[in-house]
Amino acid sequence: MIGIFDSGIGGMTVAHAVEQLLPEYSLIYYGDIARTPYGPKSPKTIINYSIRNTEFLLNKGAELIIIACNSASSVATETLRKHFQVPIIEVITPAAKCAIESSRNGQIGIIGTRATVKSGIYPKTIGLRCPEFKVHQTACPLLVPLVEEGWLNKRETKMILRRYLHPLKDKQIDTLVLGCTHYPLLKKPIQARIGKRVKLIDSSTQTAQYVKEFLVRNPEIVSRQGRVTHRYYASDTTETALKVAEHIFSRPMELIIE
Amino acid sequence: MIGIFDSGIGGMTVAHAVEQLLPEYSLIYYGDIARTPYGPKSPKTIINYSIRNTEFLLNKGAELIIIACNSASSVATETLRKHFQVPIIEVITPAAKCAIESSRNGQIGIIGTRATVKSGIYPKTIGLRCPEFKVHQTACPLLVPLVEEGWLNKRETKMILRRYLHPLKDKQIDTLVLGCTHYPLLKKPIQARIGKRVKLIDSSTQTAQYVKEFLVRNPEIVSRQGRVTHRYYASDTTETALKVAEHIFSRPMELIIE
Repeated sequence: MIGIFDSGIGGMTVAHAVEQLLPEYSLIYYGDIARTPYGPKSPKTIINYSIRNTEFLLNKGAELIIIACNSASSVATETLRKHFQVPIIEVITPAAKCAIESSRNGQIGIIGTRATVKSGIYPKTIGLRCPEFKVHQTACPLLVPLVEEGWLNKRETKMILRRYLHPLKDKQIDTLVLGCTHYPLLKKPIQARIGKRVKLIDSSTQTAQYVKEFLVRNPEIVSRQGRVTHRYYASDTTETALKVAEHIFSRPMELIIE
Repeated sequence: MIGIFDSGIGGMTVAHAVEQLLPEYSLIYYGDIARTPYGPKSPKTIINYSIRNTEFLLNKGAELIIIACNSASSVATETLRKHFQVPIIEVITPAAKCAIESSRNGQIGIIGTRATVKSGIYPKTIGLRCPEFKVHQTACPLLVPLVEEGWLNKRETKMILRRYLHPLKDKQIDTLVLGCTHYPLLKKPIQARIGKRVKLIDSSTQTAQYVKEFLVRNPEIVSRQGRVTHRYYASDTTETALKVAEHIFSRPMELIIE
């Protein structure tokens, strides 16, 4: 079984992509809604929560863990790999790899939470492969609450996006990484504001693709017995959580609270 | 020692008012920044966190607890009073009392988090004293993240306020309760949008006043030995937390992380 965790519901964009790309695998998701959001919090706190989430998934039978949260991927991957035996897949490497392949002028933009931007993980990952590339980052802390509220098309959201993206507009980037699993839900207004010529990199689909390649190379890691199940757990529920979840999956969803 | 807890830094508006009104008392504050915000979360989760926060303060020597958070006051007061022996003071009753005294036409507006509005605590508290009053509520979930980001004067904040306050404008309210400890930081733009004739009730100052009256009636409850200390603890730190704290107190602040 594939285990996926996130700080809340944003990571469901990854789960949805995994469901679509790997329909033959069972999947278990855990959204830490009771402690959401992770983005503004400290590395120490995010690491503690990530350990707890991983333990939850392993107890339910997960054989591989996807950290479907850029903030947790940025600061907790190393610790999780030390703590646990199962493969830990994060969302940064697939997105960074794709950004490098996409960029022609070597000017890459990154938008993410404060935790992700502050960790410097994207510039580091990209710089290790392509030292000549320039990486321009901007933290966009209000986008997560806007998405969680379902304000995907509101005028205020577009204005806030314009404010956040403004510094990147000047940098002549040709590629922009949506470095937070919530952001694919704002793809359309982001594309409108950053310009048609900039390629948007969605870490969710890139990560699902990466997991697929990993499982082709390591088919023994995740078992495929019995009926395929997709179970979605959360540490709490909110009025908007289910709405956003159903928006992501375009189907009625059930959130098991545990 | 007076103990005060909040989901984060918003409750410091209460702590600041207590410091000013009761300078002869030592005070200990606990902001649960690691789990902030409480407003969108379920009553069960908010109650669990509130018990934990109260235990923290009691272990540090608190003799009276102020729940400086409308969401926690709304859903956790009863449980805390059952669990703990010390007096538990919440922010709803003082604000509701003041709103009743202020209103001339009996039309009172309430703005708060989803948890506070959904609990129905303000209409219930006001209705028990004045059944003929009409209480109009609106949840304003984005105001907390906007305040935490320090976007107190931004154009987007004003637009979002206009959207939230619009339904209340039609109700001819003459009194508006700022039913979340973050909102006093937005007093000016709220007043501008709701109109000069509407009286704003700030639960922070009302609660401090209430505590003062309580301590006059019950002077034995809180000891006053030794040097007066004001200690501010938090379960995590964020880049903006200290900035907002220093904005509230207009002085350099220290947050002890525990």
